[in-house]
Amino acid sequence: MTKPRLTALAHSLPASVPFVGPETQERARGVAFDARLGANESLFGPSPKAISAMARAASEAWMYPDPEAYDLRQALAKHHKITPENIMIGEGIDGLLGYLVRLMIAKGDAVVTSDGAYPTFNYHVTGYGGVLHKVPYRDDHEDPIALFEKASEVNAKLVYLANPDNPMGTWLTGAALSDALAYLPDGCVLVLDEAYIDTAPDGTAPDIAIDDPRVIRMRTFSKAYGLAGARVGYALGAPDLIGAFHKVRNHFGMGRVSLAGAQAALEDTDYLNETIEKIAHARTRIAKIATMNGLRPIPSATNFVTLDCGQDGTFAQKVLDELGTLGIFARMPFVAPQNRCIRISCGTDAALDAFEAALPQALAAART
Amino acid sequence: MTKPRLTALAHSLPASVPFVGPETQERARGVAFDARLGANESLFGPSPKAISAMARAASEAWMYPDPEAYDLRQALAKHHKITPENIMIGEGIDGLLGYLVRLMIAKGDAVVTSDGAYPTFNYHVTGYGGVLHKVPYRDDHEDPIALFEKASEVNAKLVYLANPDNPMGTWLTGAALSDALAYLPDGCVLVLDEAYIDTAPDGTAPDIAIDDPRVIRMRTFSKAYGLAGARVGYALGAPDLIGAFHKVRNHFGMGRVSLAGAQAALEDTDYLNETIEKIAHARTRIAKIATMNGLRPIPSATNFVTLDCGQDGTFAQKVLDELGTLGIFARMPFVAPQNRCIRISCGTDAALDAFEAALPQALAAART
Repeated sequence: MTKPRLTALAHSLPASVPFVGPETQERARGVAFDARLGANESLFGPSPKAISAMARAASEAWMYPDPEAYDLRQALAKHHKITPENIMIGEGIDGLLGYLVRLMIAKGDAVVTSDGAYPTFNYHVTGYGGVLHKVPYRDDHEDPIALFEKASEVNAKLVYLANPDNPMGTWLTGAALSDALAYLPDGCVLVLDEAYIDTAPDGTAPDIAIDDPRVIRMRTFSKAYGLAGARVGYALGAPDLIGAFHKVRNHFGMGRVSLAGAQAALEDTDYLNETIEKIAHARTRIAKIATMNGLRPIPSATNFVTLDCGQDGTFAQKVLDELGTLGIFARMPFVAPQNRCIRISCGTDAALDAFEAALPQALAAART
Repeated sequence: MTKPRLTALAHSLPASVPFVGPETQERARGVAFDARLGANESLFGPSPKAISAMARAASEAWMYPDPEAYDLRQALAKHHKITPENIMIGEGIDGLLGYLVRLMIAKGDAVVTSDGAYPTFNYHVTGYGGVLHKVPYRDDHEDPIALFEKASEVNAKLVYLANPDNPMGTWLTGAALSDALAYLPDGCVLVLDEAYIDTAPDGTAPDIAIDDPRVIRMRTFSKAYGLAGARVGYALGAPDLIGAFHKVRNHFGMGRVSLAGAQAALEDTDYLNETIEKIAHARTRIAKIATMNGLRPIPSATNFVTLDCGQDGTFAQKVLDELGTLGIFARMPFVAPQNRCIRISCGTDAALDAFEAALPQALAAART
């Protein structure tokens, strides 16, 4: 039996999973989690109008999706006051990051990110043979000037920055980010991941012209809109770069039901605003629970709160494991020194009740 | 404004769309088609149980999908009497073909296909820098021995063959295909696209061991199962090759609602069998309509019938355009001599009534 003749690059790659799903852990546990607080999903769910739209679209699922996703792009263009040519819809930000890296990164090309930032971006860079250069976080924040200086030093084609940040929940002001762009070297594109922008304070999104070729922004329906299971993300940027996605994308990759759900969710502004309020309330409550248990909540602009457990990564991992045993699914940053923390998604009251009940036990167990 | 620094390969690619969607044509027409008979969708729709499952799953769409698609893989393993390690689920066959080509084809690697076979496969090969070698159809059938001999001649890493074939609807017996494998060169993988296998006569699927490293099969829920809009395909093959997909795939690319729909569709065997009967009935009716209008229906094992218009590609294109004007969405083969034909999907009685009414007018207009 001969082995498949993979490319040299594919042969060199591990069969890695950037994130293990909670379902995998549930199958190992033999029982479901009581509270699903690890993937920064919206436990408040999508708009009922989105659910209805998806249920209606289900009976039309015999039709291929519109490969142009025309209706959703029109709606997004109106929403953002830009043109459809500034918008590329894809299979979640994960899918769009893959296409972007494929378009721009060949073997040996340099890419810059923060040490401990989004692993799926790194997965794609490695997957296309790029070379990652990492810059440390500064006081639990991403450090744009350091990132851009590093990009200059290594002649990077892409630099990744999430604002607000995952996994720390911290954020930079849009003004700080705009100012930092002066350090971005010519010909380097900033991948600005704004997955969590909907829950951030006004002024967190930088005021950059949509046609500015230096920046491509990533947005999603997975977080505040509550549609992680629909897999709908979109990129915003200059038409040249956005149009290049047509060269490589899976033109029929988006589900018809998902597109219908995203559009209905986008149009239900009231529901989004209510959800954002619930998220803010949950942030406050998570911070309070943490403080009562001697943990330090890191101020967050996202739909999760990162909690400093005050020791090292080994201890935080123990806390996480104990929470898991007690039925609470959570995650933690992968890299020191951020991995002294655990990360708790903004949940419903019931989910946070379960977290509140479990945390003291988990900490006690971790400390023994 | 600097242009984005695309890779040399990406720069060389056109921003092409393998298939223009009917929605694009409808927007240009300003009115919807009366009959959607061009994309080989199932106008009979998915199982009502699949629709219900999707409607139920819509309210769970706040959760990311299980990246292992464990439940559907288990169900498919049981259905095919194989192990989950033989199965890779992806964003339609289109998405899986992209991953497979990425894994195996680097710049300059040779790939063989038939001249006029599935353009999306070619799109991926070109997209990863592969070199396509094409073999002509033989009497409107794909020609496996010629394909495999060509693969030997050019040292191909992949050879693509659809059985039953699209766009011609013809098929080879499984036995003929198994026998032809003797000609497949060592180290070359046959991509056997079985998108239309569910509507084919018994014995069309070759009896090849699931762990045979020479073959990877592609299956889909888009055709007989009526879930084209859900984007669920799967690959069947040896664990080595199937496992390699984990190196490059979008682990969170599948929608949760889509996975639920596919599983319910798979389990509703009665509905599938009823649909297959309806498809067979529609094939007979399309053939009859064609014959009455002086066109020659090519025997089909698929959910469409290809009709020989008896002249050249220019004439067939005229017929197609006239049908479009009359509200009938259809497509035709892209390459001579197959492009003397038009291709009509198996529709409901209402859709075929519309086709039957339009065809004589379209032919008359094309002949003037």
